Amino acid sequence: MSKPADSAQSPTDATTTMAELRQIVADFVAERDWSQFHTPKNVSMALAIEAAELMEHFQWLTAEASRGIVAEPEKLSAVAEEIADVVGYSIALANELGIDLSQTIRAKMIKNAVKYPADKYRGRFGPEDRSRQ
Amino acid sequence: MSKPADSAQSPTDATTTMAELRQIVADFVAERDWSQFHTPKNVSMALAIEAAELMEHFQWLTAEASRGIVAEPEKLSAVAEEIADVVGYSIALANELGIDLSQTIRAKMIKNAVKYPADKYRGRFGPEDRSRQ
Amino acid sequence: MSKPADSAQSPTDATTTMAELRQIVADFVAERDWSQFHTPKNVSMALAIEAAELMEHFQWLTAEASRGIVAEPEKLSAVAEEIADVVGYSIALANELGIDLSQTIRAKMIKNAVKYPADKYRGRFGPEDRSRQ
Amino acid sequence: MSKPADSAQSPTDATTTMAELRQIVADFVAERDWSQFHTPKNVSMALAIEAAELMEHFQWLTAEASRGIVAEPEKLSAVAEEIADVVGYSIALANELGIDLSQTIRAKMIKNAVKYPADKYRGRFGPEDRSRQ
Repeated sequence: MSKPADSAQSPTDATTTMAELRQIVADFVAERDWSQFHTPKNVSMALAIEAAELMEHFQWLTAEASRGIVAEPEKLSAVAEEIADVVGYSIALANELGIDLSQTIRAKMIKNAVKYPADKYRGRFGPEDRSRQ
Repeated sequence: MSKPADSAQSPTDATTTMAELRQIVADFVAERDWSQFHTPKNVSMALAIEAAELMEHFQWLTAEASRGIVAEPEKLSAVAEEIADVVGYSIALANELGIDLSQTIRAKMIKNAVKYPADKYRGRFGPEDRSRQ
Repeated sequence: MSKPADSAQSPTDATTTMAELRQIVADFVAERDWSQFHTPKNVSMALAIEAAELMEHFQWLTAEASRGIVAEPEKLSAVAEEIADVVGYSIALANELGIDLSQTIRAKMIKNAVKYPADKYRGRFGPEDRSRQ
Repeated sequence: MSKPADSAQSPTDATTTMAELRQIVADFVAERDWSQFHTPKNVSMALAIEAAELMEHFQWLTAEASRGIVAEPEKLSAVAEEIADVVGYSIALANELGIDLSQTIRAKMIKNAVKYPADKYRGRFGPEDRSRQ
């Protein structure tokens, strides 16, 4: 966190490893001696609160209008910040618990692929719910 | 998602870029034609629900006991999966909205550093709450 | 909680006071000596988790389909149980904190009426959002 | 919602029926023609967001400090308002779905009593978690 960055020029997802993001969060927490507050219980609460703040942007919008925010730079930016908060706390929790996020996400996506076979769930979010959306 | 992986041998955070994780999620969604359900509104709901499931592991535990799960492999693994779900949906939402997560997280952490100067917030989570925790 | 009731014959909203519902919850907690776990922090987590479980019933549904559950007795019953859990924990928290819910709800609705004047917000959920839904 | 009330003198939980609270919420919604926005999906989101706002008051507090807010009138009042919002949306949802809250809560508490027999769960929140809290 020592040097400010121009986000337009800062490294993108294409070149940023998860470990680099974890280090940014770890440094931030260490510089404030906040690990003492970062019990898994507390961080899980903080994460859920940020998830709700993200959801707040969409609560009264139609499905279509919620897609429309990609064309509204100010709202999109606010939404992006909330997602950053959610992922930031996810990383903080992974840091506290010593979890490798990339391995865990890969493993979970494989599990999901088994649970939701592509040929059975194509175009449906549940076996019986073909045309709801 | 086409080939299963041994998570013990799969690439770790040290070598996995955010773009790689985004691709895994994007492929999973595309193979099921689920983008139609992935309105920002719906994904924000799914994310908040996963955040609650994560929190559920800690709701009745003391702060100390919540730290103790690092020594309980089965519970730790269940918690890790919930974090993976949260980050997975965060990535799915970033995919739908075309947001670069690494840039957004870096920018937000800088903003946080300005909002919570290290020298003022060291060891406290709020200006007036020095010794609560 | 001492005598089971046939819900079809049990007292309805028309005749049940909030104090009666509070007593049912208070007895349940006292009989299990659970007040020790019912810190406001813990109960607020439990409440948020139940709220997410309620939301889970609607996450992939269209707005219209979510209204349609009134015609699906089994789903409606499951949703009703989640609402009961949410209100149950709200009552448990009010019990722990000594808050009168009826007075608080009346006062808050008056505050809401001032914040959202009927003539300005009729048919709109926000000043600029006339026709989104 | 037509006449303001002094909350100190307004009817308490002892004399207020759930039906009266439901009517207050129903009138508020009708006066603004907001039922069109009150799909079960939307209201469940609003409810979860209010639950998170409630939780926010406790997220960094210890269990003990969270109990301490009963002695802090300003914080207690803010917390009470969040609970009112949660119950208010629960009522709004019950109104949309035609659910009797008192019957549902009674039935659910009976179900809970069967699931958590008092003699087995006295002083423990789970079979194996006697002394965590």
